[in-house]
Amino acid sequence: MINPKNPQLNKNGELVHLLSTEGLSRAILTQILDTASNFVSVSDREVKKVPLLRGKSVFNLFFENSTRTRTTFDIAATRLSADVYTLDIARSSTAKGESLLDTIANLSAMAADIFVVRHSESGAPYLIAQHVAPHVHVVNAGDGRHAHPTQGLLDMYTIRHYKKDFTNLSVAIVGDVLHSRVARSDIHALTTLGCPDVRVVGPRTLVPSDLSHMGVRVCHTLEEGIKDCDVVITLRLQNERMSGALLPSSQEYFKSFGLTTERLRWAKPDAIVMHPGPINRGVEIDSAVADGPQSVILPQVTFGIAVRMAVMSIVAGNVA
Amino acid sequence: MINPKNPQLNKNGELVHLLSTEGLSRAILTQILDTASNFVSVSDREVKKVPLLRGKSVFNLFFENSTRTRTTFDIAATRLSADVYTLDIARSSTAKGESLLDTIANLSAMAADIFVVRHSESGAPYLIAQHVAPHVHVVNAGDGRHAHPTQGLLDMYTIRHYKKDFTNLSVAIVGDVLHSRVARSDIHALTTLGCPDVRVVGPRTLVPSDLSHMGVRVCHTLEEGIKDCDVVITLRLQNERMSGALLPSSQEYFKSFGLTTERLRWAKPDAIVMHPGPINRGVEIDSAVADGPQSVILPQVTFGIAVRMAVMSIVAGNVA
Amino acid sequence: MINPKNPQLNKNGELVHLLSTEGLSRAILTQILDTASNFVSVSDREVKKVPLLRGKSVFNLFFENSTRTRTTFDIAATRLSADVYTLDIARSSTAKGESLLDTIANLSAMAADIFVVRHSESGAPYLIAQHVAPHVHVVNAGDGRHAHPTQGLLDMYTIRHYKKDFTNLSVAIVGDVLHSRVARSDIHALTTLGCPDVRVVGPRTLVPSDLSHMGVRVCHTLEEGIKDCDVVITLRLQNERMSGALLPSSQEYFKSFGLTTERLRWAKPDAIVMHPGPINRGVEIDSAVADGPQSVILPQVTFGIAVRMAVMSIVAGNVA
Repeated sequence: MINPKNPQLNKNGELVHLLSTEGLSRAILTQILDTASNFVSVSDREVKKVPLLRGKSVFNLFFENSTRTRTTFDIAATRLSADVYTLDIARSSTAKGESLLDTIANLSAMAADIFVVRHSESGAPYLIAQHVAPHVHVVNAGDGRHAHPTQGLLDMYTIRHYKKDFTNLSVAIVGDVLHSRVARSDIHALTTLGCPDVRVVGPRTLVPSDLSHMGVRVCHTLEEGIKDCDVVITLRLQNERMSGALLPSSQEYFKSFGLTTERLRWAKPDAIVMHPGPINRGVEIDSAVADGPQSVILPQVTFGIAVRMAVMSIVAGNVA
Repeated sequence: MINPKNPQLNKNGELVHLLSTEGLSRAILTQILDTASNFVSVSDREVKKVPLLRGKSVFNLFFENSTRTRTTFDIAATRLSADVYTLDIARSSTAKGESLLDTIANLSAMAADIFVVRHSESGAPYLIAQHVAPHVHVVNAGDGRHAHPTQGLLDMYTIRHYKKDFTNLSVAIVGDVLHSRVARSDIHALTTLGCPDVRVVGPRTLVPSDLSHMGVRVCHTLEEGIKDCDVVITLRLQNERMSGALLPSSQEYFKSFGLTTERLRWAKPDAIVMHPGPINRGVEIDSAVADGPQSVILPQVTFGIAVRMAVMSIVAGNVA
Repeated sequence: MINPKNPQLNKNGELVHLLSTEGLSRAILTQILDTASNFVSVSDREVKKVPLLRGKSVFNLFFENSTRTRTTFDIAATRLSADVYTLDIARSSTAKGESLLDTIANLSAMAADIFVVRHSESGAPYLIAQHVAPHVHVVNAGDGRHAHPTQGLLDMYTIRHYKKDFTNLSVAIVGDVLHSRVARSDIHALTTLGCPDVRVVGPRTLVPSDLSHMGVRVCHTLEEGIKDCDVVITLRLQNERMSGALLPSSQEYFKSFGLTTERLRWAKPDAIVMHPGPINRGVEIDSAVADGPQSVILPQVTFGIAVRMAVMSIVAGNVA
């Protein structure tokens, strides 16, 4: 049975779905990160596979397209030896007017084990999780502006890898925080893991002051935002924001908030620079920084496979 | 060598292609259903796989798109440990003007074992079956208005599962029988399996009287059609019929032929309700029936995987 | 380290990428063909697989669409037991403005082993090969008008299979040689393998005289071109050429250069006829020839799987 207080957990408090980093305890976040660290080496092996999910059926349900994220889940599931089915949702029965829950009921009847769900509507993975059989697991691969928990977790993995301990870190999240499910997932995870100083940085249109209720410090200049930070997480600036009323232009944005080598000196000398990708060179980040010695953008990608392997293997081992 | 009287069988009378339920003997239909019953449990196992088709190459050739049906074949072949290749036919060489038979000859030269074919033209799978090498097998996944034999077989599996014996059953098929390859495949299979009372039910535009030549009773009211029936198979009403001359509107259809809880009382109290999916709630079937205790719509989906595993494993074991 | 003189080889002269048949020694070409001959039988086995690349990750990166070529690589990698990931490049991050090299860097961070690259720009696979880590391999599946080395190699395999020795052969390549990456790859391979008489045959618009600098004989009539030849390679006439200034019409082309049974008598009686596919019946080749006893078009397809298995297994065994 799903825990009524937290639909991600069963009544023993074990993770059965991953829907959000919000509501996960420090113990569970740490369990995921520890499990992931065992999987990092799998991708370096001669044979990059472990048989943990052999014969399990993982369905990629990407109602919102994302080739890159889908591929990372595909790789993670395959390296766990699962069978992966990717549905071309745009062409499928939902397009014929079938409801989301009827689609899910049908796929469950085909003996699905894990649904990896990306959806433009916030909450869609929750809705699905509430309706699947106890042996079926839902992993949120991004829902609306709400959450992108595996990205949040791989960010935590990356920070822990380079900085060891969260309890004395200053972390700055720079960019379009208002619309970013990545920022939201990072903030919840950082707070739970004991990070004492989380800052959100950007223009008022993208980083409104009331974000402070999430337990973060709101900064409207880059200098204040990344001053003496240990970690700078730059967010992707969605092109669709540029032409809107929220931002005058991408050049203007870069002038004020683009991360350059010079500005990065405001942060600590050993600060790491992160980005969820794909990067817009010359918009939110300068190439010299993205490709520079403080950048850990590509290690994030590598750790992302291990974190997704960890999440899928953990939920598959628990019953709702 | 293909049997000239029946291109689905070799000269020993063994199944080498599945093109239609028409022309299959009761013995062969029963062989498929019996084999399927062995596979139903595979999907419940910890490791949902058997090595029967290990190293075999199954090609999905869906000239007409159907994400759902394609996925069921993909799952069935994968659980038999085959390697599955799905061709994006819309973008492929046939689009460059290559003929259907040249495409097939090329794929055969790549050492294909099974072609799963969906085509908008009735007879396309027959044409292919007549031209492949003796070790290659064709499974029809729906051709025009002609046949959808694996759907017919999974319907038979479902009926046998719940009703045990065909020889004392009344089965009603309700809806657009005229245009339905599912109805056609069901009727042939039911008749061969000894079902004494098969009725086709719907308005005269969708169920013309001359369908009686198929050995079925034609009924133009739902009450007469499902009266004391053991099995009610509702068909999907294609949206494209609605706007045409054949039907005034989907509401009108529901008023006369939509299956509601009240109307279902005309059938036997233990009658089962089936549907090939995806369902149109409130058009051919009311949600209370679709989700109700007599509905076996989701078990049909589950049995469909096992039936497709059975068909592929049987044909792969025979040589033309 | 990549050999600066030839980016396909490491400093020991071993093949680490396959980018072009140009620059490969006779020894390496022969190694590939010999390895392929071991793989031809794999596709005939009951279980069509060998575990050579088990747990390796092969990424299909088809920036230019080609369902057929992609499928042959997919099959080859799968029969080597690799895990194959096909990216829908048109929808992916490159479409979001990410650069080619950023895409490659990201996929490399996911622990890719082999990139199979098709691109409309000549040289794109070279660019990628120059930027990947030493354990990552690039196989060119066709770049612009430049090269299609696996097609060239499967053509060599086919010729060697039927004619044994290259050193006494006359080979004619007929058609749009100017725009053909296949022709270019064939010419380099034939020359290196010691073929003394390579002719390119077609109208002046498609076979300009200056092609002779490639060490071939330029012929503007079919009779002169295929006279006493051992091998006739017909090229596909791209439809887009027809409507342009280069050719009056496909009928006109067929009248002068279409290969018919009668004209084929100009070649040696045991000449073989090849075509990279998909064929245009009645344009570059008559059906009677394509389906006739001298045609080896379908064996080419079969050998193509084995050649691609050979290439992938060889490069995967070497480090840059």
